[in-house]
Amino acid sequence: MAHPLDPLFRPRSVAIVGASSDPNKVGGRPLAFLQKGGYRGRILPVNPAAAEVQGVPAYPSLADVPGGIDQAIVAVAAAQVPAVAAECIARGARALQVFSSGFGVGAGAAEALQRLQRMARDAGVRILGPNSLGLFNTADGFFGTFATALDGAWPAAGGVGVATQSGAFGSYFFGLAQQRGLGFSHFVATGNELDVDVADCIDFLVHDAATQLIVVALEGCRDGRKLAAALHAARTAGKRVLAMKVGVSQAGAAAAATHTGSLAGEDRVFDAVLRETGAWRAGSLQALVEAAYAATVALPQAAPHTAGSQGRDLLVVTTSGGIGVLAADAAEAHGLALPGIGAAALQVVQAIAPLAAGENPVDTSAGILGDLSAYARIAGVALEARRYDAVLCYLAHIPRNPAHWAQLHAPLLALRQRHAATPFAAVGLADAAITADLEAHGVAVYADPTAAVRSLAALLPMAAHADPVGVAREAASATALEGPLATEADAKRALAARGIAFAPERRVHDADEAVAAAQAIGWPVVLKIVSPDIAHKTEAGGVALGLTDEAALRAALPAMRQRVAARLPHARLEGFLVARQLQGGVEVLVGTQRDPVFGPVVTVGAGGVLTELLGDVSVRLAPVSHATARAMLAETRVAALLRGWRGAPAADLDALAEQVARLSAIAWASRDTVAGLELNPVLARPEGAYALDALVVGAPAPTGEPA
Amino acid sequence: MAHPLDPLFRPRSVAIVGASSDPNKVGGRPLAFLQKGGYRGRILPVNPAAAEVQGVPAYPSLADVPGGIDQAIVAVAAAQVPAVAAECIARGARALQVFSSGFGVGAGAAEALQRLQRMARDAGVRILGPNSLGLFNTADGFFGTFATALDGAWPAAGGVGVATQSGAFGSYFFGLAQQRGLGFSHFVATGNELDVDVADCIDFLVHDAATQLIVVALEGCRDGRKLAAALHAARTAGKRVLAMKVGVSQAGAAAAATHTGSLAGEDRVFDAVLRETGAWRAGSLQALVEAAYAATVALPQAAPHTAGSQGRDLLVVTTSGGIGVLAADAAEAHGLALPGIGAAALQVVQAIAPLAAGENPVDTSAGILGDLSAYARIAGVALEARRYDAVLCYLAHIPRNPAHWAQLHAPLLALRQRHAATPFAAVGLADAAITADLEAHGVAVYADPTAAVRSLAALLPMAAHADPVGVAREAASATALEGPLATEADAKRALAARGIAFAPERRVHDADEAVAAAQAIGWPVVLKIVSPDIAHKTEAGGVALGLTDEAALRAALPAMRQRVAARLPHARLEGFLVARQLQGGVEVLVGTQRDPVFGPVVTVGAGGVLTELLGDVSVRLAPVSHATARAMLAETRVAALLRGWRGAPAADLDALAEQVARLSAIAWASRDTVAGLELNPVLARPEGAYALDALVVGAPAPTGEPA
Repeated sequence: MAHPLDPLFRPRSVAIVGASSDPNKVGGRPLAFLQKGGYRGRILPVNPAAAEVQGVPAYPSLADVPGGIDQAIVAVAAAQVPAVAAECIARGARALQVFSSGFGVGAGAAEALQRLQRMARDAGVRILGPNSLGLFNTADGFFGTFATALDGAWPAAGGVGVATQSGAFGSYFFGLAQQRGLGFSHFVATGNELDVDVADCIDFLVHDAATQLIVVALEGCRDGRKLAAALHAARTAGKRVLAMKVGVSQAGAAAAATHTGSLAGEDRVFDAVLRETGAWRAGSLQALVEAAYAATVALPQAAPHTAGSQGRDLLVVTTSGGIGVLAADAAEAHGLALPGIGAAALQVVQAIAPLAAGENPVDTSAGILGDLSAYARIAGVALEARRYDAVLCYLAHIPRNPAHWAQLHAPLLALRQRHAATPFAAVGLADAAITADLEAHGVAVYADPTAAVRSLAALLPMAAHADPVGVAREAASATALEGPLATEADAKRALAARGIAFAPERRVHDADEAVAAAQAIGWPVVLKIVSPDIAHKTEAGGVALGLTDEAALRAALPAMRQRVAARLPHARLEGFLVARQLQGGVEVLVGTQRDPVFGPVVTVGAGGVLTELLGDVSVRLAPVSHATARAMLAETRVAALLRGWRGAPAADLDALAEQVARLSAIAWASRDTVAGLELNPVLARPEGAYALDALVVGAPAPTGEPA
Repeated sequence: MAHPLDPLFRPRSVAIVGASSDPNKVGGRPLAFLQKGGYRGRILPVNPAAAEVQGVPAYPSLADVPGGIDQAIVAVAAAQVPAVAAECIARGARALQVFSSGFGVGAGAAEALQRLQRMARDAGVRILGPNSLGLFNTADGFFGTFATALDGAWPAAGGVGVATQSGAFGSYFFGLAQQRGLGFSHFVATGNELDVDVADCIDFLVHDAATQLIVVALEGCRDGRKLAAALHAARTAGKRVLAMKVGVSQAGAAAAATHTGSLAGEDRVFDAVLRETGAWRAGSLQALVEAAYAATVALPQAAPHTAGSQGRDLLVVTTSGGIGVLAADAAEAHGLALPGIGAAALQVVQAIAPLAAGENPVDTSAGILGDLSAYARIAGVALEARRYDAVLCYLAHIPRNPAHWAQLHAPLLALRQRHAATPFAAVGLADAAITADLEAHGVAVYADPTAAVRSLAALLPMAAHADPVGVAREAASATALEGPLATEADAKRALAARGIAFAPERRVHDADEAVAAAQAIGWPVVLKIVSPDIAHKTEAGGVALGLTDEAALRAALPAMRQRVAARLPHARLEGFLVARQLQGGVEVLVGTQRDPVFGPVVTVGAGGVLTELLGDVSVRLAPVSHATARAMLAETRVAALLRGWRGAPAADLDALAEQVARLSAIAWASRDTVAGLELNPVLARPEGAYALDALVVGAPAPTGEPA
């Protein structure tokens, strides 16, 4: 089926504007690579000074090129790009790759690029770059790139499709992966993303039959929702996505800001999106390469995501107890379970090897070194004892000892064949020939046990709960807020009107009104200052808790007025809130923020004093369904409190999840008018969940300051 | 200088009891290896059935061996070991290696081993094993081991000394490290540790001149204090220790329990000891190998620990912004800082490469590909801008491109020479010859940026605060508690007598006494049940907070009595405590536990409800000094609260640290009589820190249950 990016990835003809006869130059490399790759389309070098370039007939200008031009590679100085691009479009090119960089940062440069963008959009032409390293497509031999990585490492055809924003980052991944023996369907570096972005390329790879595995490298992105949609599409199509996103740490984010000069969005939101869409996130380039290797070797036939694996249950068979412990550590760290084979199966195992021990890891003991076929028999018993989603066989030095390997080789491969749908990794020291033999039979070979466990984990379905695409958004019907609201009282009124439950409260202006309000709503009460200028009332001395009677309230009110006036003399004071102080329950933070990349996101975590202390929250793109809200609550440490801590009754999770889902819907509806909502805390009680405070803020405000 | 383990590691002669002519058998391998290794001492095979074994004259029995026997390798059936060992000792052997395993688990086996242990101790003979894989010493060519790992990989001599408990685990590390090109001084596997343990072997390696780096692999250990002392000795001697300890996770600990059948001690205590002694802990075998590689290549001359490095400041020079971000992420994850080169130095850099950006990472930009000597000049400017403790140079594909490499090679090596004392890693794709050349010049070469950063981090001094060995222990003068105490009241009295500060309180038996007590110590008060049978008073309904007046107290007391009686009808009730309820302050948990391996340890963390929720505590071996107690408080999340959270006043850290140091001293003094002490919480106030609750428990009680 045709894809909108076909003219980019598989053009019928390609003009190279700025074609050079020097194969080490940006304009010369693609020509050399296209010829080396055996590209069967027409190659049309454009060079005003040469009749042929690298043996291919050349044309002095685009106007002189005979016939149609499907794609044009633009490798000219930045200043010439707009004019050249216009000419390409006029000649009917459907896609442009712009290798040129150095457009500068002035207004003139930005304007020229915007003109180019408009022109292309009007003509229905797709642009890759500028500052793109280009792309390649091994099936068609189309190597439209100047990547120096190809000098040292020519790609074999295979199932890995790579979509990267940064050419340098992506091509280094390519170099590492090529060294590890992986084969590629496509590689594309989107560069400055004037038009085509990584999300577009993921979508192309999702629809490409040759691509079995999608590898994504990101530093940030412009349109987070589009990225999320592309990742969802990959999940739906059963194509596994392995992703790397740098800028996790403070230092990294600072370096990224220097490097990209743009807002990267919060890393934890990226992380949440990757989880939610089932993409596996690598923590290092090596981890990314090793996981891609496992995907291509250990599941060669089926698309990884739709293969036999249903869960995350790993079987470990080992000749060494210590390595078994290590593998178990790694399994827990990467979210895998190690269910045991059961006592009956262990008895069968011990009939084979009396010193064998453990239900998972199954330690064969070194006693089997006399007859290593026992190893395969033990692994077979274990694999048939119950369903496992992946297998790790620790082989130590066995493959290096010819006598030992002769005993194990055939039984091990037979076992692997009997369990063809199960990802299978062997860990041990093996030479190249034995490694190649194992790989040919679908066994991924690792020297490091931890890398093997991590890589198997990358192949299995993720556990994170996510709404089916679009479901929550359709269900989320809320009226938009008209904009930020300056006081807590206004915020509460607006949110209450949209279904958020609050503790009973009244706004008052003096002590008499306050006492009347408290008598109406019931003691004890909390008294809070109302001011459009004070976001952090506690710090301002604007909160008094535990007022149990009239005397206490009458004393607290003027004291608060004085205290706040002393601390913030310029803050406008607009009265007080008297609210019922609810006893018991668990304080939970429920908030939304407008991420610069992904738009509204919803956050839950421990509330009150714990929020900053724990720093442990669950994040999702807003809106979320009730079910996802419940899953979010279960992901945080506050879950232990909500379940009922030290004999306390359990909290009303349904009511609490409803607050989360509702607030997320309000944030989504108000995505153009407000930047953030915060209920801190929501008091989750055995019956009901009531927000005790509310903020509705304008400009992106990570610190909670109102606009 | 002579070391007590010399007869084990460098014997003048070695008898092999059970010597076999088959070099694939346990009794045959060491003979083959000793000959292959060129051991110059006397090799004395003992075999009743052969006049020579593998070409070496053999003796029918130990009695027939002429001359002295320095060491004996015992490779006979388990049942014969005690008799053979006795004979060896009688013949004057000063050290035994016992390869035999399978002693069984019966009382008879244990008794036989104990007899052997006593016999050896009385004779001053050291025993390695049983169930040891043996050891080797490359300097003397002494290969007294049956490790099959040596079949595939003969060790080169070098500075790495390996001490491992598990032979299988250690020999796999050896295989990986040998593959990575590392050279070894010694390797020893201690097996069941009847006598010689890993700590003894570390001590030997600390005193061995050929050993520059000590690699330790542990699953657990028997004598934690001895291990800590050996690690401290390594630190004092300036020898870096890289350690791996498995059994981190729940799953791993469960597997370790199956595997070793013994208490492993709490992993976090091991972790604290490794930090405290400056040993670097690897999270995977690969990380261990890569760090050992960095130590041997990048700091070949000096002992790593005493080289120029003073801190943990890393300089990153990169050709790719994205990889710079990645390196910055990795640096933060591994506790390295990235201080900038400063604006002035950046200007100098930009005079060399106008598109260069960033003060650290310093991104040279791809613009330097025209003249790569600029790369070395930029790195030189950066390195001279301030002191850095380590350098990472990202080179991408440059070493693979002959034209590029020709430009960079000499300037890079010259730069490395100018900064010979600074650990130096290059990250890029390089062939074997270029890699070897760089290594020969002290540059560690990595393909993966994360591995490079992590490995450099492993070479630098650790930041964790530790008391100079023995200082805290000598300063810790406390009177031992006589044993566990059943009630809170008794515990408080005993601890108060030893200097722990508590909130004022009285023990009472009825409401009248309670009111009198409250009037004496001041309102508000808290009322608590006193019972030797109730550890968790809150769950039992035995705590009433916030009693502000006589009426409230008079109502609370009988209600509590009823409630507790209803929930725990069999608990003996011995009255009540009335304590002043202190307002304000931060709740901190201060506790001690008796670790099965390390003895008394002291723990601090967030107190009250937060203790379990945060699960984030700082742990050290008890006793600790006041200074270490302060460092511990700074390591936990509660530090944010103690500094004064949201405008609250800062807590009295000196008073709080004093409570920690005192409790740790009491725990050390009482190490034989009590298993744990707990003050939860200590209320850290702006002036003073007061414990509000106390437990003194007997048997090891991780859940806080009294004995």
